Amino acid sequence: MTDFAAKLAKAAKAVDQEMDNLLPHGQELEHRLFDAMRYTVLGGGKRLRPFLVIAGGEIFDLDMAECLRVAAAVEIVHAYSLVHDDLPCMDDDDLRRGQPTVHIKFDEAAAVLTGDALLTLAFEILADRQTSPDPEVRMALVAGLARAAGGQGMVGGQMLDLWAESHPLNEAGIARMQRLKTGEMIAFSSEAGGILARARPQQRQALRMFAHDLGLAFQITDDLLDVEGSAEQVGKATGKDAAAGKATIIAKLGVEGARDRAALLSRQATAHLDHFGKKANSLRDLCDFVLNRSN
Amino acid sequence: MTDFAAKLAKAAKAVDQEMDNLLPHGQELEHRLFDAMRYTVLGGGKRLRPFLVIAGGEIFDLDMAECLRVAAAVEIVHAYSLVHDDLPCMDDDDLRRGQPTVHIKFDEAAAVLTGDALLTLAFEILADRQTSPDPEVRMALVAGLARAAGGQGMVGGQMLDLWAESHPLNEAGIARMQRLKTGEMIAFSSEAGGILARARPQQRQALRMFAHDLGLAFQITDDLLDVEGSAEQVGKATGKDAAAGKATIIAKLGVEGARDRAALLSRQATAHLDHFGKKANSLRDLCDFVLNRSN
Repeated sequence: MTDFAAKLAKAAKAVDQEMDNLLPHGQELEHRLFDAMRYTVLGGGKRLRPFLVIAGGEIFDLDMAECLRVAAAVEIVHAYSLVHDDLPCMDDDDLRRGQPTVHIKFDEAAAVLTGDALLTLAFEILADRQTSPDPEVRMALVAGLARAAGGQGMVGGQMLDLWAESHPLNEAGIARMQRLKTGEMIAFSSEAGGILARARPQQRQALRMFAHDLGLAFQITDDLLDVEGSAEQVGKATGKDAAAGKATIIAKLGVEGARDRAALLSRQATAHLDHFGKKANSLRDLCDFVLNRSN
Repeated sequence: MTDFAAKLAKAAKAVDQEMDNLLPHGQELEHRLFDAMRYTVLGGGKRLRPFLVIAGGEIFDLDMAECLRVAAAVEIVHAYSLVHDDLPCMDDDDLRRGQPTVHIKFDEAAAVLTGDALLTLAFEILADRQTSPDPEVRMALVAGLARAAGGQGMVGGQMLDLWAESHPLNEAGIARMQRLKTGEMIAFSSEAGGILARARPQQRQALRMFAHDLGLAFQITDDLLDVEGSAEQVGKATGKDAAAGKATIIAKLGVEGARDRAALLSRQATAHLDHFGKKANSLRDLCDFVLNRSN
């Protein structure tokens, strides 16, 4: 295991522990909901968005523990979005990270409600005093997450992605869809450490620009994995995007062209980190990792 | 029209106008989502939860305009919950307020995403500086809404309600389900004016206790309307609870017993308002209205 892989694994473990603490549990009559929330969130995953929060915090000398609640909140929002995306009326996926999706393991109603409860929990976590003693910081986090995750962010992108199955997008349309669907949450995750640390606006802007390019590179490698990966390796059904006629950049540029584009975006991304010096090394390593990942 | 009905109608109009301003619109590629959000929220309704916010604010001399953003946020959360409840995998309703439900008018995926976007928007509204200049107040609103709407509030109650179709609840279980499903949001709506006005804890507690009894009375009259109302009058399919074997208090107490219980709860509710004097008259009038409503 490389040093970076070990660091990523350590952060993922800490985030999992934090989420375990934050998720409700108990023997109330409605405990089946809590069971489904835990199944959804604690089922593994690379925890890349939480790592962005932690690595962004490093730049401003925040230690990992100070970033964990925000890291957990962004991962919980990511988890909710996957549960809803997997529903039969959306992408209709039975498998996620090699395990039955929530509507298969529980049922469709439970999957809808589990997503709803997780999204709500993320805001409850951010609003709590333990996230930051400064209420203005907590407010900026709530507002930032809501903008990134909502109708003019992630949910809008998902709507556009579904729409594109029957109304093919041009390249600009694909870029817009991807920016909304994954880019805005990646940008918020990257910026969140700066919000927590009350960084200057230009510093936060540099993190967002880094994230913008990283997000596009991430989406392209995701699409490449869908085309090239085996289901076993990727942990979910592959080749589904093409089967569904989904808009991907690969359909426009071909596999080699898409790979070159991802590498270019990765170089562009790290250029935005130059003036942070060595403190941004974790974010640089993450760029390399995203470009070369196999699942 | 009585004075109270006129007041309720005036508040509903102001809330509708506020929501119209707060909802996204535009000709972006994802505008279909914005259309569905507007269809969902602006399709009418009594706006009882927003009225609770406004009437609660009156006690502390807040005028209606100061309460409208919070009023809009609670109604938007209510609207999201109806969209998800109406889905085929949940209550499977085709009709809401006499109009096609969102998954009928648009499609199921759009209904899931519309709910998600509305829930997220509610938090974005509360976190914004325009809601209150005091960030501690905004935080208390975000935290309160999240607790009331989430897995240990409304969503937990909905989960329990669905569960009860196959696992009948006893009377205590029904009370718990109703407190979670509708009571917590009604309590938050009632308390919200007090939060905005930085009322003392005991004052906020009195509002929550008022709301607790009001919420139970409201649920019973809802159940009575389901048993007795015609679909035309109520604006949605009736008799469905019994058909689905749903847990209602009527199954335990009978129609007359349930009606007596609602009247008792209404008297209990207003007793908590005694020390607010005349300033709580709108909340008292609302209690009468809830008890005697026909839809």
